[in-house]
Amino acid sequence: MKIAIIGAGAIGSLLGALLKREGFDCILIGRKNHVDAIRKNGLSISGSDEFNINIDAFCNPLHAKDSDIFIITTKAYDTRNAIHEIIPFIDDNVTVMSLQNGAGNIEEISKLVNKKQILGAITSMGAFVEAPGRIQFRGKGTTIIGSAFDNKKKAVEIIDIFNKAQIKTQFSDDIYRDIWSKVIINSGINTIASILDNENGVLLDKNLMEIVREVTNEGKNILQKEGVEIPEDIFDTTVEIIRNTSKNINSMLSDLRKGKRTEIDFISGKVVALGDKLGIPAPYNKTLLNMIKYKENEC
Amino acid sequence: MKIAIIGAGAIGSLLGALLKREGFDCILIGRKNHVDAIRKNGLSISGSDEFNINIDAFCNPLHAKDSDIFIITTKAYDTRNAIHEIIPFIDDNVTVMSLQNGAGNIEEISKLVNKKQILGAITSMGAFVEAPGRIQFRGKGTTIIGSAFDNKKKAVEIIDIFNKAQIKTQFSDDIYRDIWSKVIINSGINTIASILDNENGVLLDKNLMEIVREVTNEGKNILQKEGVEIPEDIFDTTVEIIRNTSKNINSMLSDLRKGKRTEIDFISGKVVALGDKLGIPAPYNKTLLNMIKYKENEC
Repeated sequence: MKIAIIGAGAIGSLLGALLKREGFDCILIGRKNHVDAIRKNGLSISGSDEFNINIDAFCNPLHAKDSDIFIITTKAYDTRNAIHEIIPFIDDNVTVMSLQNGAGNIEEISKLVNKKQILGAITSMGAFVEAPGRIQFRGKGTTIIGSAFDNKKKAVEIIDIFNKAQIKTQFSDDIYRDIWSKVIINSGINTIASILDNENGVLLDKNLMEIVREVTNEGKNILQKEGVEIPEDIFDTTVEIIRNTSKNINSMLSDLRKGKRTEIDFISGKVVALGDKLGIPAPYNKTLLNMIKYKENEC
Repeated sequence: MKIAIIGAGAIGSLLGALLKREGFDCILIGRKNHVDAIRKNGLSISGSDEFNINIDAFCNPLHAKDSDIFIITTKAYDTRNAIHEIIPFIDDNVTVMSLQNGAGNIEEISKLVNKKQILGAITSMGAFVEAPGRIQFRGKGTTIIGSAFDNKKKAVEIIDIFNKAQIKTQFSDDIYRDIWSKVIINSGINTIASILDNENGVLLDKNLMEIVREVTNEGKNILQKEGVEIPEDIFDTTVEIIRNTSKNINSMLSDLRKGKRTEIDFISGKVVALGDKLGIPAPYNKTLLNMIKYKENEC
């Protein structure tokens, strides 16, 4: 059983390290400076867990050939490229799992891969790249895996592997609901905190909380019209997450501060696009989307 | 004919200086440090016009007694206090003119003053307080005066005085329309540029322009439902103003940078409140309102 992690940033590298430590055959496909550092000094994890591990890392996706499981951990805007690069190695027995942020990744993958082979996943584990080869592990959250089609067997197989590797993982009977719920939560947290260039806890301000409430309810209403069963209490869940991550700089803001592209098109952008399709206005998401897109172009 | 300027900040002091220079009997009621400086060194105007003038200035509104015209130039949130202070001097022959930002000033004044005696005005003159006693005159715009009731005679009288004093002034046959139009324009410009802590020209970015379009159209639709005839092309007018003021730091941002309260409650806040009354959602205004209110409390 060979596992390839495609797009080994913070979360992908962390997964790889935890799997490899447990003895699973796992390789990373990542960027040159990160790969070079891992080859030289091993992959170093610090924070919630601390260890250094030797793991095969490559820039060229050709090295993912003969893998049984491809875990896609790229940014959402890189999904298409990643799938095009690995598609030659995807035969009928292979599983492709998206563990990414944003909506639309499964749909993108399913343009080239049979839906029966696709799994979707989300995680609340926290991690960031401290330096090439060095990952800061910021919180042992839960990972949820579900099938894009109706293939519980494949999901359960990977859940078992993850749990053996100390990655706390559960099965989801509706992974679309869970992915979209996370998108809606991020559309309320990451955007506003990024516009204000502040920690998530800034949103506990009563005026900003008003915007969080409106934007999450707007997303919920649109998704429910689409038939996705977003929980009624998604706003309350969002508030709880804000409290639990109040000192965090979210990934969108972190990207903006580095002058990198954000995943806004796959968060608020997907909610707005779905609203457009259904003829439901999404003014709160549209405002935040446009402000973040401005900020992306600012530098 | 005695004129009292109540709340002599930048615009009020500039008006007073221009009126006094032309020989009109005009006094200023303002804050202590500004009044002290004017008493010591005169009132100094620089920029679009340059002169120094001796003008009576006081902190105590008692000195406005026996005035024939009271020009209210306070911040909108100070209107109520200002009127309560001068109400003992307001008999049936007196005119009270609001030359302020935001909506609701005439309505506030009319709680204590007969509507027949009230005029409304807006100006596109630009000015800011450089230092106590020193006003930077940033642009000779046009001033528009109209009656709150149907009292063109009083308006024409003051328009005549203003024009004699080189304050380019016109009559408005619908001052509510003009005040609300300015409110809508400010709801699109001042808010977003303030949130992004930037010059007005930042709004020429295509994503931000999307928000400007939505927020001005939202205000227009609400006001039109209320029977206020906001021009159909208010968005185009807003864009023109953005182009003409692209290097300006607007007054809201200037207030925020000084840690002062803004007039947001009388700009976006009034649009949202009117929308609530009419049962029309105002999500764009509500988002910007809440962000500015957060910024007010930030320091």
